[in-house]
Amino acid sequence: MSSSRFDPSVDPAARRAAGGLKWNHYDPDVLPAWVAETDFAPLPEIVDAIQGLTDTGLFGYTGREDRLVEACVGWMKRRHDWTVDPTLVLVLTDVMQGVEAAVTAFSEPGDGVIVTTPVYFPFFKVSPSARRRQVEWPLSRGDGGWEFHVDELESILDSDPGIRVILLSHPHNPTGRIMDTETMDAVVAVAAAHEVMIVSDEIHSDLVYPGIDHRSLLTAAGARDRVVVSTSAAKTFAISGLRASVLVCGSRDVKHRLTAAHPRMLLGHVNCVGSRATSAAWESGDEWTDGLLAHLGAMRSRLIDRIGSEAPLVRFHPPDATYLAWLDLGACDLGDAPADRLVEVARVAVGEGSMFGNGGDKHIRLNFATSAEMLDEILDRLIPHLQG
Amino acid sequence: MSSSRFDPSVDPAARRAAGGLKWNHYDPDVLPAWVAETDFAPLPEIVDAIQGLTDTGLFGYTGREDRLVEACVGWMKRRHDWTVDPTLVLVLTDVMQGVEAAVTAFSEPGDGVIVTTPVYFPFFKVSPSARRRQVEWPLSRGDGGWEFHVDELESILDSDPGIRVILLSHPHNPTGRIMDTETMDAVVAVAAAHEVMIVSDEIHSDLVYPGIDHRSLLTAAGARDRVVVSTSAAKTFAISGLRASVLVCGSRDVKHRLTAAHPRMLLGHVNCVGSRATSAAWESGDEWTDGLLAHLGAMRSRLIDRIGSEAPLVRFHPPDATYLAWLDLGACDLGDAPADRLVEVARVAVGEGSMFGNGGDKHIRLNFATSAEMLDEILDRLIPHLQG
Repeated sequence: MSSSRFDPSVDPAARRAAGGLKWNHYDPDVLPAWVAETDFAPLPEIVDAIQGLTDTGLFGYTGREDRLVEACVGWMKRRHDWTVDPTLVLVLTDVMQGVEAAVTAFSEPGDGVIVTTPVYFPFFKVSPSARRRQVEWPLSRGDGGWEFHVDELESILDSDPGIRVILLSHPHNPTGRIMDTETMDAVVAVAAAHEVMIVSDEIHSDLVYPGIDHRSLLTAAGARDRVVVSTSAAKTFAISGLRASVLVCGSRDVKHRLTAAHPRMLLGHVNCVGSRATSAAWESGDEWTDGLLAHLGAMRSRLIDRIGSEAPLVRFHPPDATYLAWLDLGACDLGDAPADRLVEVARVAVGEGSMFGNGGDKHIRLNFATSAEMLDEILDRLIPHLQG
Repeated sequence: MSSSRFDPSVDPAARRAAGGLKWNHYDPDVLPAWVAETDFAPLPEIVDAIQGLTDTGLFGYTGREDRLVEACVGWMKRRHDWTVDPTLVLVLTDVMQGVEAAVTAFSEPGDGVIVTTPVYFPFFKVSPSARRRQVEWPLSRGDGGWEFHVDELESILDSDPGIRVILLSHPHNPTGRIMDTETMDAVVAVAAAHEVMIVSDEIHSDLVYPGIDHRSLLTAAGARDRVVVSTSAAKTFAISGLRASVLVCGSRDVKHRLTAAHPRMLLGHVNCVGSRATSAAWESGDEWTDGLLAHLGAMRSRLIDRIGSEAPLVRFHPPDATYLAWLDLGACDLGDAPADRLVEVARVAVGEGSMFGNGGDKHIRLNFATSAEMLDEILDRLIPHLQG
């Protein structure tokens, strides 16, 4: 609701000097398009909120997280037309903690947990470290892009009655695919028929392109007792390091199952800076986010145009959401580890597709959340190597 | 190692305006001497560290916590002559998360966990929410103060072979008592003989008074495979809200038991502000902490003098450590809930002794980590009511 403007410029030297992982993990001459973090200056209200804490010098006990929860409710209503019940929100430190807490609450050791490969690779740590069985529901690639085939989900669940959880990345990382309302309803119906819970990581849900309608899994028919959503302001506002997230339930019963599953203090507590920053983002970040989305839309179009005209061997289905492009380089002469090769020959760091599991071979994930100038330099460096 | 000076002054209006829990939980005319948080301005290097983050505007991924761990190793060596192995330190969000993680790693549902009553009341949530049995090893009060009787511990362990963990508050909250080296060695020996692990919350360990030697439980004979220490900079530097703590192990095996017990991402992640602030505190807070300790020593002496001369019915064994005074008001005419009564009649908020469990009836816990002026006003208000 504020008038804070989004600034689409990026100063590489300043980013590198700031000391973050994205700009310092590789040699200084390598341009970073790997980890899912934007390059932009933060929302001014986030800086103001943290400045307010340093000005008072009070970093002690601050009490309950009512303001963060209210800010979450407001944002989800305004941005997603999604009515969140504030009494059904749990505040945690990060989205993957929420995912792990929910998966372990809804399953026992030995139970099966579905992941939709290729997928955000930290998902592959969830089941093994909790002694659950990882089961794959692979995305299918049609002419129009990546698809969720619910009939395949149904036959997987039919053939493995030990599956207790479906873990979704929605919007889907790395493909950027979102489910339409019919598909969501069908997934929830199949889950209900098999008495399986759905854990939906929706951290990219703000970042949807024009003409595409993203709805939370919790808005699907019958989702109330079936779905938990783990999300945060970390991706839109680039505040992953501040560690604040929410786990949104649809019913008192689901919330109770979550809180009863874990000893009361095992999950730790959110910190006052992350809590204030997230509150500021969700209270005041609307216009800034509109600016971010307009810029990301332009970067996505630029990428589509240049890949289409200058690297026609690259197979690319533009994302419905996220600032990530999932590029199939199978027809290019880059070997089995194209990202490794590209950091050498093009001096651009991208995500290695094989890290995202089955379906990721000879793919790369490219982060286009940067300035127009940086994106053009990244593409200028990459495109000569994306040929036959 | 810095030259930053500790400032012993306190501005009540500014503290109240800053919005923290301590100064805002009660009516504005009530002086807060309850929750264990100091009233002083923060270490300047902590403010600088946070300011550095807001200046760069980088709140994203920051990578591993090597600097925090190194800062911990340096502080423990310089301040406590305690050699911590950096490869055996786990970084978490808060000390109680570390306590819960360790207790649940070293026991199964139904097992017994010892607490030393009266004790820091959040300890009473550890076992019930993890479906462990809480067993009490009460402190004994002798003429010289509160005592740990190891022979009593031994007979408790003899009579209940299902006990798997001893949970210690060391220095002990609320009594301020610390164990001497002989007692520590004996506790560890008894624990070893009964194959019981010790989880030691040492968050108050910096705050020790002259002539008293506090040693970490992990320095006791045989402690290496027997003891885990949960601690942080939160108490000394009043940064509880920033949420960063360490869990220090003595051996690779103990660390492995801790990490294997919990799914990898269930415990969440420390945030970049808390990590930087704690690093700054442990790297640069020596002289400031010396100043804090000198001031707290003076406040402790003032309290001893005034209670002794003006409220002789109060039974009080001065603390070896902590800025907490544990006062027995059994001889005063204040009823069964003296803290409730004192907030009404004296307009001072103190901790209600009964919250600390058995041994706490008709006691109060008074926080004396404030300015000389504030402490005198607190005592001026309290003392007329601490009579027969």
